[in-house]
Amino acid sequence: MVDRIKFLLDENDIPRTWYNLAADIPDLHPPLNPATGEPVTRDDMAHTMPEQIIEQELSLERELAIPEPVRQIYAQWRPSPLVRARRLERALGTPARIYYKYEGNSPTGSHKPNTAVAQLYYNHLAGKRGVVTETGAGQWGSAVAQSAALFDMTAKIYMVKVSFTQKPYRRGFMEVFGGECVPSPSTETAAGRAVLAADPDSPGSLGIATSEALEAHAADPTLGYVVGSAANHVLAHQTVIGQEALRQFELADDYPDLVIGCAGGGSNLAGLSFPFLGAKLRGGRDVRVIGVEPAACPTLTRGRIAYDFADSAGLSPLFRMHTLGHGFVPPAFHAGGLRAHGMGQLVSRAVEDGLMEAVAVTQRRCFEAGVRFARAEGILPAPESTHAIVVAMEEALRCREEGTSRVILFGLSGHGHFDLTAYEKYFADALDDDVLSDEQIAAALATIPAELPAGAAR
Amino acid sequence: MVDRIKFLLDENDIPRTWYNLAADIPDLHPPLNPATGEPVTRDDMAHTMPEQIIEQELSLERELAIPEPVRQIYAQWRPSPLVRARRLERALGTPARIYYKYEGNSPTGSHKPNTAVAQLYYNHLAGKRGVVTETGAGQWGSAVAQSAALFDMTAKIYMVKVSFTQKPYRRGFMEVFGGECVPSPSTETAAGRAVLAADPDSPGSLGIATSEALEAHAADPTLGYVVGSAANHVLAHQTVIGQEALRQFELADDYPDLVIGCAGGGSNLAGLSFPFLGAKLRGGRDVRVIGVEPAACPTLTRGRIAYDFADSAGLSPLFRMHTLGHGFVPPAFHAGGLRAHGMGQLVSRAVEDGLMEAVAVTQRRCFEAGVRFARAEGILPAPESTHAIVVAMEEALRCREEGTSRVILFGLSGHGHFDLTAYEKYFADALDDDVLSDEQIAAALATIPAELPAGAAR
Repeated sequence: MVDRIKFLLDENDIPRTWYNLAADIPDLHPPLNPATGEPVTRDDMAHTMPEQIIEQELSLERELAIPEPVRQIYAQWRPSPLVRARRLERALGTPARIYYKYEGNSPTGSHKPNTAVAQLYYNHLAGKRGVVTETGAGQWGSAVAQSAALFDMTAKIYMVKVSFTQKPYRRGFMEVFGGECVPSPSTETAAGRAVLAADPDSPGSLGIATSEALEAHAADPTLGYVVGSAANHVLAHQTVIGQEALRQFELADDYPDLVIGCAGGGSNLAGLSFPFLGAKLRGGRDVRVIGVEPAACPTLTRGRIAYDFADSAGLSPLFRMHTLGHGFVPPAFHAGGLRAHGMGQLVSRAVEDGLMEAVAVTQRRCFEAGVRFARAEGILPAPESTHAIVVAMEEALRCREEGTSRVILFGLSGHGHFDLTAYEKYFADALDDDVLSDEQIAAALATIPAELPAGAAR
Repeated sequence: MVDRIKFLLDENDIPRTWYNLAADIPDLHPPLNPATGEPVTRDDMAHTMPEQIIEQELSLERELAIPEPVRQIYAQWRPSPLVRARRLERALGTPARIYYKYEGNSPTGSHKPNTAVAQLYYNHLAGKRGVVTETGAGQWGSAVAQSAALFDMTAKIYMVKVSFTQKPYRRGFMEVFGGECVPSPSTETAAGRAVLAADPDSPGSLGIATSEALEAHAADPTLGYVVGSAANHVLAHQTVIGQEALRQFELADDYPDLVIGCAGGGSNLAGLSFPFLGAKLRGGRDVRVIGVEPAACPTLTRGRIAYDFADSAGLSPLFRMHTLGHGFVPPAFHAGGLRAHGMGQLVSRAVEDGLMEAVAVTQRRCFEAGVRFARAEGILPAPESTHAIVVAMEEALRCREEGTSRVILFGLSGHGHFDLTAYEKYFADALDDDVLSDEQIAAALATIPAELPAGAAR
């Protein structure tokens, strides 16, 4: 082949450790117990998660060992391909070299199984008979159902109602794997009933679904609780993506100037970029990282850095992060995986420290870029992934204008096979470009706890 | 890794030629021109297909060169993985070693792009501005739309109406890539209008959609006609699957005793099995090959070997094949890709010569096996592919009973992301197990031309 387009690795090249950025960030602000204001302890977390996950969540070690049974399951689809987007480059007429790391060949079509498999494995070891969780677009719920099936465990998934309605096949997909999918807010929990009492037509939010899942979990000690994004251990699990990409760039004899990922809770962005940031922090090459979020849920670009809850009902610890306020319910746009009010604390800190930039984009631009990408590269991208695509394409066009060649890497976090309703609406010109008013943002930010609990050490 | 589960090849290992079984089968019966009864000539075909495809269709050469631009496009997803189904083996408690060759990581999720890319490439070279075709379940139509986008060509696709209704996302998928998808029978063609006049509620058939596509193609010389299965060149294009599998079994230090594929027009079955049959015919190891078809469209098991048309209106040449009669309209079962009344002539001949066996299965057994496979291996299979899975599992269970270990290879021709309506019906116990009565079969067979045209040399 003259023009190599795909950079594969052998299954022996699957990373043996997850990379933990926390080891390379000084003075992290600990999550706080909202009752005491003190940093969350292992004991505080013990009722929620298996001890191995708690260790990872609180760890300041750089390398976290990947259990061999997890690597064995990874081997079914990992290492994922790094693809040189030569046809897209030609279509854009750019001198830039564009690469994407494609996670859509995983069993459920997104990056989510990278952490679902690990979390289900640890919960299986801990003797749980099943797990409960929340999901936005359904990518996480699908991964949980699929991973649970591998360990012969049950999975109950509270799915944000607007996405449940937009993506009817997601529920069926989870059911094939034995998962139970409930639209949230539901009448099954006090948290859900409270939301429905105030607004029977609530579209739901990831915060509400999280409250429901935490409540359901607290009611049944035989069930574990698993989380799809934002948490330190989740971000670490996803670093198999970026670690593989680093090795694949060696094969390509190239290196990215720019790493771009879409950002909801931050796990896909972190998974791709943290290994590159870690290399830079330890004296390696400089790299620019851009997180791309929806203008209708602008956590990084219009949120505030503050201690806030991860869920709407205030059941979680307090995390110091970019947040729009745990009471924020985003508009019903189609990148359901990016509808989180708060960002993972390590991603927030990377932005705060200037290691990462953030931009917000409106959804029609994203779908336009997604269609253009599909026609050039032949892959239908998930609406979430189109957020990375639009910025990658704009940076490539900037290279054309400037007559400079840069190397652009973006995360193609998943395929859009379950999102065709959204594409149909795009073609029918029936999509809104929701941009929040200053008043809406202010109202959302007002739901951030005004004061920390007594005794809180900032 | 102790237990290797995936056998990958490098993109340099993509085959450089397609294998043509016709070279190893003596005394093939030629397709006939229905007007003259004489064997179809290059001139007869010239208005339908580019000369390179005609050469391949009529070729008796064993190796057909794959153009480098086609290999370049293949490189995006090929070589496809050969996977050892260790978790399924454990779930079945079988001493058999089960492997599957997975084509679901192609850009459209099935094996169809293997030939779509090649056919669009040749039509592009021939100066066509676009193509027209028919599709059953939509896998072929999706591949045509996607490949057409790569060459900046238009694609018009007549989709069998029952599948169009069952799989609404397929149309959206084609539209993302710029394809136009029309439910068939349509009012756009004389063939479609004739069917609708006789039965306004006709569910359509592949034969009817083929008539519509051929008619639309004949009306516009700037459009090429491309075909998704059955034809010799299509079967040859698909042999990249089996050729790769042969090399991957070398890596696995193993060899299949049994090769199993689902059979509609035969391209997936042929693509996987012909290279193994070719090796056997040239003195290599023996191998048992089983084609699995739906009991509701039992072409190989209850059809007749005869000259018949490929389409319902009699616009195509006459092919000597297993056929249920070109007037046959199968029940509305969910493996839409297997609803063809006639089998590819090379597959028919392989069955006639005892190189291949055929079995028919009912759809509920298929879905049951598909769900079991999904929960063990983590991949949601297409309804078509479940036909191969059910027989592979039964053969593995037979190994358990007999206490013998055999090596079973089956083709996992695609994923079922667009088929969740069918799975939901399966779970709701709302699927029928259509088995055709002898009267229905007799009525269908009566539509086979009773006599060959004058001058036909059998």
